Amino acid sequence: MTDSERIVPDEETLDPPDWEKFRTLAHRMVDDMVTFLQTVRERPAWRPVPGEVARRFDAPLPQEGIGAEAAYEEFREIVLPYPMGNVHPRFWGWVSGTGTPFGMMAEMLAAGMNPNVKGYQHSASLVEAQVISWCKEMFSFPETASGLLVSGGSMANLVGLAVARNACARGEVRRHGLQAYERSLTLYCSSETHSSIQKAIELLGLGDDALRRVPVDEDFRIDLEALGRMLAADRSHGAHPFCLIGNAGTVNTGAVDDLEALADLCAAEHLWFHVDGALGAMAYLSPRLRKRVAGLERADSLAFDMHKWLYMPYEVGCILVRREELHRAAFSLVPSYLATSDRGVASGSAWFADYGPQLSRGFRSLKVWLSIKEHGIEKYARLVEQNVAQASYVAAAMEASPDLELLAPVALNVVAFRFRTPELEEAEVDALNREILHRLHESGEAVPSQTVVEGRVALRIAITNHRSRRSDFDRFVAEVIRVGRQLVATGKHRSARTAQVPGQRR
Amino acid sequence: MTDSERIVPDEETLDPPDWEKFRTLAHRMVDDMVTFLQTVRERPAWRPVPGEVARRFDAPLPQEGIGAEAAYEEFREIVLPYPMGNVHPRFWGWVSGTGTPFGMMAEMLAAGMNPNVKGYQHSASLVEAQVISWCKEMFSFPETASGLLVSGGSMANLVGLAVARNACARGEVRRHGLQAYERSLTLYCSSETHSSIQKAIELLGLGDDALRRVPVDEDFRIDLEALGRMLAADRSHGAHPFCLIGNAGTVNTGAVDDLEALADLCAAEHLWFHVDGALGAMAYLSPRLRKRVAGLERADSLAFDMHKWLYMPYEVGCILVRREELHRAAFSLVPSYLATSDRGVASGSAWFADYGPQLSRGFRSLKVWLSIKEHGIEKYARLVEQNVAQASYVAAAMEASPDLELLAPVALNVVAFRFRTPELEEAEVDALNREILHRLHESGEAVPSQTVVEGRVALRIAITNHRSRRSDFDRFVAEVIRVGRQLVATGKHRSARTAQVPGQRR
Repeated sequence: MTDSERIVPDEETLDPPDWEKFRTLAHRMVDDMVTFLQTVRERPAWRPVPGEVARRFDAPLPQEGIGAEAAYEEFREIVLPYPMGNVHPRFWGWVSGTGTPFGMMAEMLAAGMNPNVKGYQHSASLVEAQVISWCKEMFSFPETASGLLVSGGSMANLVGLAVARNACARGEVRRHGLQAYERSLTLYCSSETHSSIQKAIELLGLGDDALRRVPVDEDFRIDLEALGRMLAADRSHGAHPFCLIGNAGTVNTGAVDDLEALADLCAAEHLWFHVDGALGAMAYLSPRLRKRVAGLERADSLAFDMHKWLYMPYEVGCILVRREELHRAAFSLVPSYLATSDRGVASGSAWFADYGPQLSRGFRSLKVWLSIKEHGIEKYARLVEQNVAQASYVAAAMEASPDLELLAPVALNVVAFRFRTPELEEAEVDALNREILHRLHESGEAVPSQTVVEGRVALRIAITNHRSRRSDFDRFVAEVIRVGRQLVATGKHRSARTAQVPGQRR
Repeated sequence: MTDSERIVPDEETLDPPDWEKFRTLAHRMVDDMVTFLQTVRERPAWRPVPGEVARRFDAPLPQEGIGAEAAYEEFREIVLPYPMGNVHPRFWGWVSGTGTPFGMMAEMLAAGMNPNVKGYQHSASLVEAQVISWCKEMFSFPETASGLLVSGGSMANLVGLAVARNACARGEVRRHGLQAYERSLTLYCSSETHSSIQKAIELLGLGDDALRRVPVDEDFRIDLEALGRMLAADRSHGAHPFCLIGNAGTVNTGAVDDLEALADLCAAEHLWFHVDGALGAMAYLSPRLRKRVAGLERADSLAFDMHKWLYMPYEVGCILVRREELHRAAFSLVPSYLATSDRGVASGSAWFADYGPQLSRGFRSLKVWLSIKEHGIEKYARLVEQNVAQASYVAAAMEASPDLELLAPVALNVVAFRFRTPELEEAEVDALNREILHRLHESGEAVPSQTVVEGRVALRIAITNHRSRRSDFDRFVAEVIRVGRQLVATGKHRSARTAQVPGQRR
């Protein structure tokens, strides 16, 4: 019996009215997208959305459908031509993942199977569990550790700090709330720590006051002596320090805290050691770079992103927790013995929803599983090394130029720099560098982003791009110099508008 | 200049070594997945993962890659044949979305463009903003309201309640934490409320004690008199009630609280009105069903899922907040005037990261945008009506059978029932129904799930499936009766294992 014979006349479906026509469309979509990626280098790194295109997005909720073909034509016309640009070889703005063609197709496979990966007995749960195991291997975590795939670094930090809060409070906080505490709970991190930590602390009800920002040294690493003094002072004032957050790669400069020293301190002071590795954890994959982030494998909880420096399509991040029972205790709503059935769909040992805030969960592990099988983790390690080498290469080129100035040491893959000229005052240099940034974006030549380093406007590139070549960086450095000199020569930097962008966007 | 000419010999990429070979593979993947969906009815609704297949997922982290073709072959061999089953026309377990073929392809397009939709000027931000506008239209929210696409209902509830907490505390909680409060903050919901609300309350640091569960009436709706008494008593004990949570569709029975009355009460008592519409909000789309969930459009914050009853692929949920400034105040870390640049990539008016916990955000709006254009919202409304009609149809068939018993009124699309026989004691009936459930799963005939209604084990179907036909329900009812009678006749129900499954899984 065919499908159509079963349909009661008045029953509808969202399946295609004509499967062969749909199949033809699907093939066209794949052709277009493979071509889109294959030819990305031929297009600008970014271009603005024209006003008449932007206005097309003001249309109200469609009452009647136009069919898959016509909907796809609109995508081709007004969506595909105006990407963010992070798939381009000269996009190094913020810390943006590049994605891969196979990762793109993996998302199609995942959406076709469309499982809910909260748990249950089906292949997606097994894929998910295996990817978590691989993550533990990647970062030398014990087999007994737990982990959860999440939407990204912000969520990974939130989950990790929720576990820390709960572990410190031995579960009381879940029942009685933070108001049951008399002593103020405090956490410690460097002043260079990413805003997602603050967001997590606030969401957890601890309050930003609880997040104690420790000054950094000249390499933008947490100042250990200052940390010790703050801990002692807070304790003497009756506070209850419970967690220390280390950075494996800060957002502004890519600095890595002395994670070994922080791990030692946490052991001595009975603090939870959380590491935010969203930016730099992947350096651990490389035998040559591992020492730069050594100590992250000693974290009680480690947050990292795979849509950044592991080049996976958005979204996928991960939190690892050394002690599984503490992870589960922070989120599970059912006692272990009730977690699953012993037979049927609800059987299966994994119950991911017990380890984080989501219940329904998509199949984000498939792209990771397929991609790591495709390339092997050693190739990812080589690409991480390649990006670090590119950062050193571009930094050397900048140091060799009298027009450019590095604003921070290059710890990993982030280069913060500016165009400088003795002719201008500091405020004018800031405006000049903002204008250079805008012109680079507007010409589509390259996409760095802006940050503020020690009060000075900096251009910044974070290289998490497997498509970038050394020649792209040669071209970029030459263009920054050309644009900067031209602006100074024509006095155009003075007309630069002075709108600020925040320094803390990752 | 071609791409290959630009590559420095020692530089690597994750792009395919041979684009035409990759293109061929991508077409094969699409063919396989279109066929997978086209033929889903011919396969069982579920089948267990054989032990020898499950063991394949124990392999350690791959060091070397095997290439895209071989990786895909593994997917075809051990992943694709063992789906969760929720794409099948006779899968009605928990509340699981079905997805669509066009939605599947939309995920491929999104992953190919791979934008970070935290904000910025590019087409994905415009798509996202338009989808949020459409969501406001769908639920009669004012244009001035704000919204955010999130991973699903759990996250939507978390964001909504975080805004409620912050609004009640006028922002103080973000800075000083909950410990700065002397009065205990309390929230109210019915005893039938989904566990994600408890999870959110606990994560927010309010503590489960703060969540006051109000008894329900015989229709499983919140008891308004009991609610009034609890509010008064809590206030007299010095508590600070700040939020009331209404259900538009409870997890166990699909019951809908009297949302109009709750909205009135919130206005009178100065409470934040949060509606959890993850299960039933979509009934609002239908002019015929709208009255059943009327009042949800008066919520201060409305949480709903689009991967459930709007049939989108996982993950996509949404939170709407009536007062944009309160939404932003709960999450934004930058003052408005610093939020974006005026030129370049960082320009653009939308900054989604200011409205929720995520900073990096994938392009989850594209599948919604394309699918609503494909079908028009009226077709979705008709499909919601179809599922509600199917629930009534199956309930009528059950009521007509002496072997079956409905355990709750059918408010929308959830039917909770059990096989009964006068020959057995209550405990034996529980075991019998569990055994029926397992046999339905194991045979692949259909996937209902289990819950507990008033202490009795219930089989439960939640119909959020655009592939189900009336004939599927005929077949299902007949099979439940056949299996039940056979078990009773052979005395096999007595050997049923008694493992429990929790009642609160959505």
